[in-house]
Amino acid sequence: MLDLLKEEVFEANQRLVDAGLVVLTWGNASGFDPESGLVVIKPSGVNYGQMRPKDMVVVALDGTVVEGTLRPSSDTPTHLALYRRFNGVGGIVHTHSVEATAFAQACREIPCYGTTHADQFHGPVPVTRFLTEEEVADAYEANTGAVIIERFAELDPLAVPGVLVAGHAPFTWGRSAAKAVDNAIALEAIARMARLTEQLRPAVEPLPAYVGEKHYQRKHGAKAYYGQLSVER
Amino acid sequence: MLDLLKEEVFEANQRLVDAGLVVLTWGNASGFDPESGLVVIKPSGVNYGQMRPKDMVVVALDGTVVEGTLRPSSDTPTHLALYRRFNGVGGIVHTHSVEATAFAQACREIPCYGTTHADQFHGPVPVTRFLTEEEVADAYEANTGAVIIERFAELDPLAVPGVLVAGHAPFTWGRSAAKAVDNAIALEAIARMARLTEQLRPAVEPLPAYVGEKHYQRKHGAKAYYGQLSVER
Amino acid sequence: MLDLLKEEVFEANQRLVDAGLVVLTWGNASGFDPESGLVVIKPSGVNYGQMRPKDMVVVALDGTVVEGTLRPSSDTPTHLALYRRFNGVGGIVHTHSVEATAFAQACREIPCYGTTHADQFHGPVPVTRFLTEEEVADAYEANTGAVIIERFAELDPLAVPGVLVAGHAPFTWGRSAAKAVDNAIALEAIARMARLTEQLRPAVEPLPAYVGEKHYQRKHGAKAYYGQLSVER
Amino acid sequence: MLDLLKEEVFEANQRLVDAGLVVLTWGNASGFDPESGLVVIKPSGVNYGQMRPKDMVVVALDGTVVEGTLRPSSDTPTHLALYRRFNGVGGIVHTHSVEATAFAQACREIPCYGTTHADQFHGPVPVTRFLTEEEVADAYEANTGAVIIERFAELDPLAVPGVLVAGHAPFTWGRSAAKAVDNAIALEAIARMARLTEQLRPAVEPLPAYVGEKHYQRKHGAKAYYGQLSVER
Repeated sequence: MLDLLKEEVFEANQRLVDAGLVVLTWGNASGFDPESGLVVIKPSGVNYGQMRPKDMVVVALDGTVVEGTLRPSSDTPTHLALYRRFNGVGGIVHTHSVEATAFAQACREIPCYGTTHADQFHGPVPVTRFLTEEEVADAYEANTGAVIIERFAELDPLAVPGVLVAGHAPFTWGRSAAKAVDNAIALEAIARMARLTEQLRPAVEPLPAYVGEKHYQRKHGAKAYYGQLSVER
Repeated sequence: MLDLLKEEVFEANQRLVDAGLVVLTWGNASGFDPESGLVVIKPSGVNYGQMRPKDMVVVALDGTVVEGTLRPSSDTPTHLALYRRFNGVGGIVHTHSVEATAFAQACREIPCYGTTHADQFHGPVPVTRFLTEEEVADAYEANTGAVIIERFAELDPLAVPGVLVAGHAPFTWGRSAAKAVDNAIALEAIARMARLTEQLRPAVEPLPAYVGEKHYQRKHGAKAYYGQLSVER
Repeated sequence: MLDLLKEEVFEANQRLVDAGLVVLTWGNASGFDPESGLVVIKPSGVNYGQMRPKDMVVVALDGTVVEGTLRPSSDTPTHLALYRRFNGVGGIVHTHSVEATAFAQACREIPCYGTTHADQFHGPVPVTRFLTEEEVADAYEANTGAVIIERFAELDPLAVPGVLVAGHAPFTWGRSAAKAVDNAIALEAIARMARLTEQLRPAVEPLPAYVGEKHYQRKHGAKAYYGQLSVER
Repeated sequence: MLDLLKEEVFEANQRLVDAGLVVLTWGNASGFDPESGLVVIKPSGVNYGQMRPKDMVVVALDGTVVEGTLRPSSDTPTHLALYRRFNGVGGIVHTHSVEATAFAQACREIPCYGTTHADQFHGPVPVTRFLTEEEVADAYEANTGAVIIERFAELDPLAVPGVLVAGHAPFTWGRSAAKAVDNAIALEAIARMARLTEQLRPAVEPLPAYVGEKHYQRKHGAKAYYGQLSVER
């Protein structure tokens, strides 16, 4: 069942470890199959070295486990909330990567200081508010999804493919699990560059908007000319 | 004698090197066998690349070497002091990992700034006081254990599985040597995240207590739902 | 066609990944063949792991694609502008390496604080001005080359083999693609050292000019005595 | 000729690369044979990947090349000056490792903030003065050795096995080339820990002297009890 997607999700999870974004079991990647409306996600708390593609868990958008002998990631309700709302998103990644998590812990959005950022995120990387005590007590993981969705009320998730949850850590997404991993890697690099930029010039201003716009559009716009025509953007 | 535990302790020591927590010979891991009341520990000052499981030294809780041709780690009296006092601890790790050691040198506890921390440590990572001149002169390593125990007078070592010894470096522990290594890896990541968080927002406040409590309990509490039921927590 | 140069350019691109200067597809290296006046460059947006030497694209100095089925790097017009103007340059590298990019984003040149810098760059690593809105709107990549050339009006590109483009990232170059990679590696190390030096002593002064001059000349001057006589400098 | 020492010096040079202390060709290790009074050193500016033990150059203490077809390291006169003066030193290492070089560029000694430092260096890691313009112009590398020796007028080089040359980079040494590499690795870690400690607590005080003394003596003193009896300290 969904063997290809299981393979993709498995590889996405492994790439998170290879890229140094995940230590121990602190991360998870999932993929969405639009045809069946099902989600494939990493099992909870299992060592990466021992996972196999067949260990991936299949879950319906309402949270029902459809296939799999292991429990799905404890963050599954967050993934599902995002898939239900963010049209076109085919993969979601959650990590505790150090530099992005530091911005989340500082409860700060990441300003766009350069073209590396503008190539990947259309505008600052947003940060959510803290969850209230009530939201934490009841359906915590689903409410984590809810505050992300609340933060994106006026943002396009395909143009801003990630978020920092205040006091917690980043989530990224994309048209596929592989793209969500790319965006997790990009986010960690962007966060580090932003921190170092502020260290070098505490009063630094964001990149002029016309430069950021150019970079975003040349890679993602209607007239994009970055990459190969046959390559998914 | 205790071949399985020797293998576990050997692998725990190797994982410290693989995780980048130990350079040269600056670290050691040990394991405790509750049945025999014996401790298996790394030999002192031996290169990691040349060690074999059979080189691990077996020591009684009073410090008597029970088996082994090499001297046990010079930090053995610290390990033994902790095993004698901390019920349920089955493994102890000592490293000089850079970020945690910087907090120890700065004589600062690590505040809980996010869920990564809350997932692993129930409250701040504590720091001991400095040893006095007398404590250093006589039975230094045993007294290092004593100031750790003093610091834990009102703390649960299984809920706060590590400490920073002022001016020195971290010790971590857990129900097994492998868990103690996990906690050493977690501590280094947490320390780095805390430093970067303070760099990004010097006046940052600790994570709201209700968020930290939720994360700790979902992973370690009576109603924990992180991980697989069959996996040791 | 230009098989040897394709191999060199391919290897230069791979070394950028191995050295940790490039993640995802954020970088490119090219080489110039003075005999034919042709440039060999990485294709745009292709994964490094899937590239082969034969995928390198051959481009004339006016931008015409002479050979290759893939699109050349979107930064090709920048490379071409530099080859047309900088005599003796046989290789160019563009990365978004973190430390150098942080200086570019902070719009700061890198002062010469030590002999590591002086061994590679004759004077500070310069930073360009920001492009204007008009320069960005029309022929953006060619204009990136133009602002670099403008910045080098009174500089010798073979003595100062790299630049930071404000708000963007570094370009380096050299007598060959391999030398351009060496200079990209050196630039990243120099940038990191400069940042840490300022952290350790905020009011630090540049290296006395006579020390820097000595180091530069012993490696690159007419009476250079660093390295082997038969080794290209 | 001196085949064993050539092998040791070759391996010492390779370990510098493996430990991340040397990029490109920025470093060198040498060894001294007390019986013959000869020094074996890395050739100048040769890529590490292409070196073989037989490429090591044999030099007399007066600088005469005794064996070898390649030029010795351009820093050879510094090494020779130290071997002529520092009794008991059997190996010397020079690197531009980032954290130690940052202290050298900031012209700051490294204070002893913890036991990691005290285990390896008896007191702060000293920094030399800058060379004068005259010292740079004539016999620069020999004069680099001279300012190091000047700085050690009242220091024991076997108790303080390294130095920072102002505006330049570190040199370390030991009873063998392997020990000099160990000290280069230790110095880089100590420098990083010191920088982070100051970041976490700007007004931090050095480690109480009695703790540092204890750690140094338990590893290197007459009654040392760290390591195995048969292992060289």
